Amino acid sequence: LEPKVKGVQWRLGAVGTAEWTGVALSALLDRAVVKSSAREVVLQGADCGMLEDPKGPPGELTFARSIPVSKARADVLLAYKMNGGELPPQHGFPVRAIVPGWYAMASIKWLQRVIVTDQPFGGYYQTIDYAYWKRRGDIGELVPVAEMQIKAEIAKPAQGETVPSSSNVRVHGAAWTSDGEITKVELSTDGGATWCETSLLGASKPNAWRLWEFNWKTPSAPGKRTLIARATDSLGQTQPVHRDPDRGTYMINHLLPIEVTVKL
Amino acid sequence: LEPKVKGVQWRLGAVGTAEWTGVALSALLDRAVVKSSAREVVLQGADCGMLEDPKGPPGELTFARSIPVSKARADVLLAYKMNGGELPPQHGFPVRAIVPGWYAMASIKWLQRVIVTDQPFGGYYQTIDYAYWKRRGDIGELVPVAEMQIKAEIAKPAQGETVPSSSNVRVHGAAWTSDGEITKVELSTDGGATWCETSLLGASKPNAWRLWEFNWKTPSAPGKRTLIARATDSLGQTQPVHRDPDRGTYMINHLLPIEVTVKL
Repeated sequence: LEPKVKGVQWRLGAVGTAEWTGVALSALLDRAVVKSSAREVVLQGADCGMLEDPKGPPGELTFARSIPVSKARADVLLAYKMNGGELPPQHGFPVRAIVPGWYAMASIKWLQRVIVTDQPFGGYYQTIDYAYWKRRGDIGELVPVAEMQIKAEIAKPAQGETVPSSSNVRVHGAAWTSDGEITKVELSTDGGATWCETSLLGASKPNAWRLWEFNWKTPSAPGKRTLIARATDSLGQTQPVHRDPDRGTYMINHLLPIEVTVKL
Repeated sequence: LEPKVKGVQWRLGAVGTAEWTGVALSALLDRAVVKSSAREVVLQGADCGMLEDPKGPPGELTFARSIPVSKARADVLLAYKMNGGELPPQHGFPVRAIVPGWYAMASIKWLQRVIVTDQPFGGYYQTIDYAYWKRRGDIGELVPVAEMQIKAEIAKPAQGETVPSSSNVRVHGAAWTSDGEITKVELSTDGGATWCETSLLGASKPNAWRLWEFNWKTPSAPGKRTLIARATDSLGQTQPVHRDPDRGTYMINHLLPIEVTVKL
């Protein structure tokens, strides 16, 4: 992506799915007897450090994000197990938040504090960072990144990989969406000129990705071929063809061509 | 200030006071029959352009800022006259907003549109720009710059000026505050070791600066001397000694020493 962002260059493939066990945040809020004027729930992690961003607050900063009370009550989990085992340190031991359907920056690891507030929260990680521009008429507004956008990803073959000509090659990957469920993943092996429907694997599960595969009969002629996957969900949403510049480097769900080489 | 900001380097003295004539924004809101759910009023100017900020929205951006409905109803003016004459082009002809007590970025020039909204507005000029960090416990929040902070400024002598020894030198300047009124301006001619009260000039007027003066009997010995002015208002507020780094390059109202040279 241009311009390059600070920090980890994730490139393609920084996605995962796991099974989480924990306590519903709503149960905690009920016990705390949250007032009806409550508006947002701020989740604060234990991870902190100094920023080098001149736009950031000076001094040590703790990672924190807020979610609307309605979302907090709906399905947010305070998880202490991952895939049935103890939460690994790098996944937020001893307890982390899971905010289903939202990009992962909302799922605070090493959870340290839960703050209920009647004011919108304007922390660094939902204003200067992890925020995008939403148009309201002809003016733009900075809003926090939240719900995941529908997307399909090709796991194999990878960008730049070589495949044999006149063969059966298994093309496979994952697709996900925030609301509804994935109903279709299509694949183009000719750069988007034509599309074929792929096979969805397993059963649809809420807030988990759906795996898909396609048996690609590779062409007999050698050369470069461009693969593109495209997902559609039960709400009729599909991926945009082009990147939305208002989103900066977030919510990158436009069609992403993968180039492979067919060899004799 | 370090780090240097983009744009005009205002340095000291970018202040002014004028008499404005116009229509109360509250009259306009009454005529428009604003709903009780209204929360903010967005004022949009005609000035627009492209930003070079990678954190900004791509494309053309119009200057816009919001104010709470309560402030909009209280005293905001849509001004079409300045000091009794037609509004000059550089001051926002044909009509501009005057948001009393707030830093000038809220007083939108060349006013084009007034939007009433039930959502907090997150435009560029109150998030990425013209915003500062407010502490809420141990986490910081990005909030729009709004009310002016109390401040006294020395107009004359200027930084680096030379004054004669053993003479009477008129030190003068202005002081202002957002709520209440200026009750005292003190001057130190020895870098803050001792303070003298200055004379306030004219009558106190709401939302205007108060001029002050002091007859300085300059020392007989030549050398550098450091002048500092300090204002106090009717709410007992005074200026902080040191800069608050959470404010970035905004609301610079800490004590500002001016160095002059006394010459034989």
